[in-house]
Amino acid sequence: MKLSQLGERNIIDLIWRTLGETQEYDDCVTLEQDSNFLLLTVDFIGEKTHFMRDWPMESVGNFFAAINLSDIAAMGGNPTDFMASMFFPSDFYSEDLGAFIRGMKNMLDRYHVTYRGGDFKESQIAGMSGIAIGYVEKDKIIRRKGAHMNDGIFVTGALGKQAGGYFLWKNGHEEGVNILLEVIPRIIEAQLLAGKASSGMDISDGLSASITQMEKINALPFHVDFDAIPVDKLAYEVSEDYGIPLEYLVLDFGGEYELLYTSSTQIIGKEIGVVGERSGIWKNGKKVGGEGYAHFSALLDKT
Amino acid sequence: MKLSQLGERNIIDLIWRTLGETQEYDDCVTLEQDSNFLLLTVDFIGEKTHFMRDWPMESVGNFFAAINLSDIAAMGGNPTDFMASMFFPSDFYSEDLGAFIRGMKNMLDRYHVTYRGGDFKESQIAGMSGIAIGYVEKDKIIRRKGAHMNDGIFVTGALGKQAGGYFLWKNGHEEGVNILLEVIPRIIEAQLLAGKASSGMDISDGLSASITQMEKINALPFHVDFDAIPVDKLAYEVSEDYGIPLEYLVLDFGGEYELLYTSSTQIIGKEIGVVGERSGIWKNGKKVGGEGYAHFSALLDKT
Repeated sequence: MKLSQLGERNIIDLIWRTLGETQEYDDCVTLEQDSNFLLLTVDFIGEKTHFMRDWPMESVGNFFAAINLSDIAAMGGNPTDFMASMFFPSDFYSEDLGAFIRGMKNMLDRYHVTYRGGDFKESQIAGMSGIAIGYVEKDKIIRRKGAHMNDGIFVTGALGKQAGGYFLWKNGHEEGVNILLEVIPRIIEAQLLAGKASSGMDISDGLSASITQMEKINALPFHVDFDAIPVDKLAYEVSEDYGIPLEYLVLDFGGEYELLYTSSTQIIGKEIGVVGERSGIWKNGKKVGGEGYAHFSALLDKT
Repeated sequence: MKLSQLGERNIIDLIWRTLGETQEYDDCVTLEQDSNFLLLTVDFIGEKTHFMRDWPMESVGNFFAAINLSDIAAMGGNPTDFMASMFFPSDFYSEDLGAFIRGMKNMLDRYHVTYRGGDFKESQIAGMSGIAIGYVEKDKIIRRKGAHMNDGIFVTGALGKQAGGYFLWKNGHEEGVNILLEVIPRIIEAQLLAGKASSGMDISDGLSASITQMEKINALPFHVDFDAIPVDKLAYEVSEDYGIPLEYLVLDFGGEYELLYTSSTQIIGKEIGVVGERSGIWKNGKKVGGEGYAHFSALLDKT
């Protein structure tokens, strides 16, 4: 059977079943290191799936580092080191490679993260896997599991901006690409949440997908009020200009990399719901939002 | 300028120059951890560059884990954990994915290495970056730099088998693929060398390339006697059957992942030369071998 027929959820299940191991659900792998956990995470982006070759490569490099650092932030960690496994076709331009590296380095520098090398190979398409390394004090780690009944549900920033950028680009506005790729990993916010949030993750595949995952992992209903969600103004504009439902832009597209967390009291960000009551995201008495961006229905095929 | 015009050496230089950092030359990144170094390494393989889609995916999975574990062995380390960033096209068969995972797991199990998850995405071609994690006691680490004048030069096993397998395959013998992919990471040997070898690395791109790199890093001549090199019998057969120079198969093709090390006394393996005297690999008074397999002249284009 082809992977497209199987779907993402079944593919992941197949992998872990074949391994005979239990899937780890957190954003990073944790290794014991005295009073700290060492955090390790890997994230891939590939040409034609996550970016196009004519996109500004400095922005792609920036994005590439940011989404990897975001996984460290999701667990309340401090990123320290970065590695990359990069592969490019032989007809890729060296100027674009230079721009990519510059973008990556700018993002790493911003958070004092050291590039430590990796792997560079030829391939049929351009792609890269980033490995972010960080640490968090053991008693301050934020895991996806840990939410309590009646905890508030919070996000660190507005949603829908990247979706807006994508649809601007899709409709011929090239500047949309830079908006799509402009991700700020919530490293600083993570320091404030570490040791305080009861659970958390970063919103990479859309709030809908994140809420679904958090409900499953915590075995608790996450009740979100759509009207309480902070929405980027570009999402409103794009929704109106192109007739795309606002709920889709805010809940299903993803790519914001804001942190979603639960806590008995507000720490930072905006409260959007409560653990308990009804399950899912609600607007005017109706449940809204799909299951978020699933791989194997590629980003660039979205219309 | 296209990357193919620039060449691998200049590409790597471009990356590090753009980063404004000094390139690290060892097989792994090292992070301080009390009396140990934590070792981290990443290695990518991609469809059409390193393997074909109709190759037995269990063997590809085996190979994928092996080449990553080999980098830990190269530094005298013990591998403990493994992550993978995997990407597959939507028309890839789930049976092949299952076979790949099985092969990977078999290799990890053999050395008691735990799979810890990673990243799974859609892509235009199949490819995967493996991340091996291990450790070594600080005073036992084997680095590429550290060779002394008059040290012996050693290899842990015979060379040329993978090259033989490749050319069998190229000439219509499908069983050649499994020989090409049958890599044994020298984990056990590494334990015997740790704390004793003065320098070392694994032979991934061919002995020629490894000797060139060791000479450069150590700023010492590495004098190797071709006739002292242990040669796999398949290399002799393939050389004779297909008229391919034996020197090419043994020195330039690579893919053996045997360990190359220097030491004042033999520890394991076979002595093939001495640090000092003349530079390079010599046979009957003539220098032999090129600079080994360079990426950006793709493996599968070799004839």
